[in-house]
Amino acid sequence: MSDIVENRLARLRQRMVETNTDLVAVGPGSHMYWLLGLNPHGDERPVMAIVTADHVGVLMPLLNAEASRAQCGSVPFYEWSDADGPLAALTQLLSEANAKRPGLNIVLDEMMRTDFSFLLLDQLDAPTHRFTLDTVGLLRAEKDAEERQLLKDSAVLNDGAFEKAFAALRTGISEVEVRDIIIDHYLANGAQPEFCIVAFGKNSAYPHHHTGTDTLQPDMAVLIDSGCRLRGYPSDMTRCAWYGNARNERFEEVAGIVEQAVQSAQAAALPGVLCSDVDKAAREVINDAGYGPEFLHRTGHGLGVDVHEPPYIAANYPEPLRPGNVFSVEPGIYLKDAFGIRLEDVAFLHPNGVEFLSELPRTVRLLPVKD
Amino acid sequence: MSDIVENRLARLRQRMVETNTDLVAVGPGSHMYWLLGLNPHGDERPVMAIVTADHVGVLMPLLNAEASRAQCGSVPFYEWSDADGPLAALTQLLSEANAKRPGLNIVLDEMMRTDFSFLLLDQLDAPTHRFTLDTVGLLRAEKDAEERQLLKDSAVLNDGAFEKAFAALRTGISEVEVRDIIIDHYLANGAQPEFCIVAFGKNSAYPHHHTGTDTLQPDMAVLIDSGCRLRGYPSDMTRCAWYGNARNERFEEVAGIVEQAVQSAQAAALPGVLCSDVDKAAREVINDAGYGPEFLHRTGHGLGVDVHEPPYIAANYPEPLRPGNVFSVEPGIYLKDAFGIRLEDVAFLHPNGVEFLSELPRTVRLLPVKD
Repeated sequence: MSDIVENRLARLRQRMVETNTDLVAVGPGSHMYWLLGLNPHGDERPVMAIVTADHVGVLMPLLNAEASRAQCGSVPFYEWSDADGPLAALTQLLSEANAKRPGLNIVLDEMMRTDFSFLLLDQLDAPTHRFTLDTVGLLRAEKDAEERQLLKDSAVLNDGAFEKAFAALRTGISEVEVRDIIIDHYLANGAQPEFCIVAFGKNSAYPHHHTGTDTLQPDMAVLIDSGCRLRGYPSDMTRCAWYGNARNERFEEVAGIVEQAVQSAQAAALPGVLCSDVDKAAREVINDAGYGPEFLHRTGHGLGVDVHEPPYIAANYPEPLRPGNVFSVEPGIYLKDAFGIRLEDVAFLHPNGVEFLSELPRTVRLLPVKD
Repeated sequence: MSDIVENRLARLRQRMVETNTDLVAVGPGSHMYWLLGLNPHGDERPVMAIVTADHVGVLMPLLNAEASRAQCGSVPFYEWSDADGPLAALTQLLSEANAKRPGLNIVLDEMMRTDFSFLLLDQLDAPTHRFTLDTVGLLRAEKDAEERQLLKDSAVLNDGAFEKAFAALRTGISEVEVRDIIIDHYLANGAQPEFCIVAFGKNSAYPHHHTGTDTLQPDMAVLIDSGCRLRGYPSDMTRCAWYGNARNERFEEVAGIVEQAVQSAQAAALPGVLCSDVDKAAREVINDAGYGPEFLHRTGHGLGVDVHEPPYIAANYPEPLRPGNVFSVEPGIYLKDAFGIRLEDVAFLHPNGVEFLSELPRTVRLLPVKD
């Protein structure tokens, strides 16, 4: 086992003691990747890593065992063939993990396929289950210095893509052409595109607009929300501009309110403060300005191996922030049939407050028309 | 609602009567897309379509409602905001679906995230659950004439990509270069790449080899397993070649056995025959030739909206074949440190037997060295 895996397993087992957890089961995906460095081929064949106080093992289809083995040193695999099915291998794993006694408190990977979860649940005797929020989720949300640097590098690379995209804006360019400029910058710098929204005009009023062939015309808003993945870690940023020779007062007023909301959340975010209170700090600014109903979503989401992960900066997430948390701050105001403005930065939480990882100013740009 | 959606809902409700099912719940993914034409943004926000005898509705995050609405005519949405969470909207949906009485027999989407499934299960009073095998899964596996044509078109386009790839083989070309030729052919013809394995030499002995930078040299096996997606429907084919000026007797012998296994499965596959018996028909050929332990996987898998879906041609899948089933036949023999041979075609099951959709001969090619 690598040092990273040893360390993360030890932290998880410590958390299992603190939360009275007997068994943790994670499926293929980000929890398994974070914990074991293992990213197995994902299909309908059950794959699951199981951790107890004194055992760790992975239920693994024979077909993918060899490729997975290369990723993941010495963690024992419990292999099963298509002909036999997974049950005998799972039973052996649970027996060696001392998990056959009744009434276990188990943690299930909330993202795992339902049939994988029931394959496990049906083998246990009257288990009580919950999801990973206070075990794997909590540990993943506490980034170390190395993870902070990886997220920082990803954010700074993303800054460069946005500079190129804004510089390319001219009358007639399409949303997908701008997206391609961004994606080319990612690929040329060794990163992978993670997602990219480019929205012109009224399209910017839809938070999850599908980037399309609409073209830029004078007197339109521009919203770009994009992120890449560099050495395993993502970025996520939103910037806005007004494209036109005449300034638009309402656009600038709304942009000012959204910027105030960002700063209000930034000031509120300290270790121990509830995520829901950080959401409230941003939301109150927008409510007070009369745009409450037009702020359609939560203030932010955690970011790490997943682009969305705990902690969620949301009204229904009353968990305290902890040092090392990384999360987006991204309030927005969406005016249907006019424009939307969202300003988003990714925050790293130090003991004394927030560091935004991007170095690109959030200021909404006013771009004169280029033909 | 479109005619297709009306028709599929009616077929599902008929199946629900036949199987004594009170409620079917499907998450974002292929079941929902097949049933409602709906392909919502997928993240941690719960999304779920619920069907009962006299109601259908979709639990939907407010943030994505507008984009989803455009895909899916008049099916009612039960929208929830980040601030409120999904519970009130789900309760209303279940109430309007008359699903609050105790002891419901429900069907869960086996691919759905575990937390989505428990969000529903926790609101029901002592439900009994199973997965979609005999409802949505069974209906999806019975393709109609239009779906057959879509799968055929995808297969024939894929044939062209393989022709180009084999024509390009020369000493020094890398696996990823061959993969790029295949992908370019897909994109140039309006299809999307679905997956692509190119394996040279010993790499072909790993059924799920990760295509890499290894280069082709004289006296190597070549295995290509690739598929595209055209107008929503995938293809999936495997062909093999021997690259060298001298023939390799063992390679040709093994290729002959694998071809016999394909033909044996083809002959066995008739409506009413168990999938496990089709698997057995292929497997016995390989067992009898002494290569049983080197046939590492099941004989095949269904293909439709998903590249892997029912029916599975596997020893542990004793379900009868039905007309309209579409599945791969892909026996293989993998000789570690030497080569692997897999020959794969996609079958459409007519009342009188199998039609293979690809038109490219399965014959293993003997390719003289090109420098």
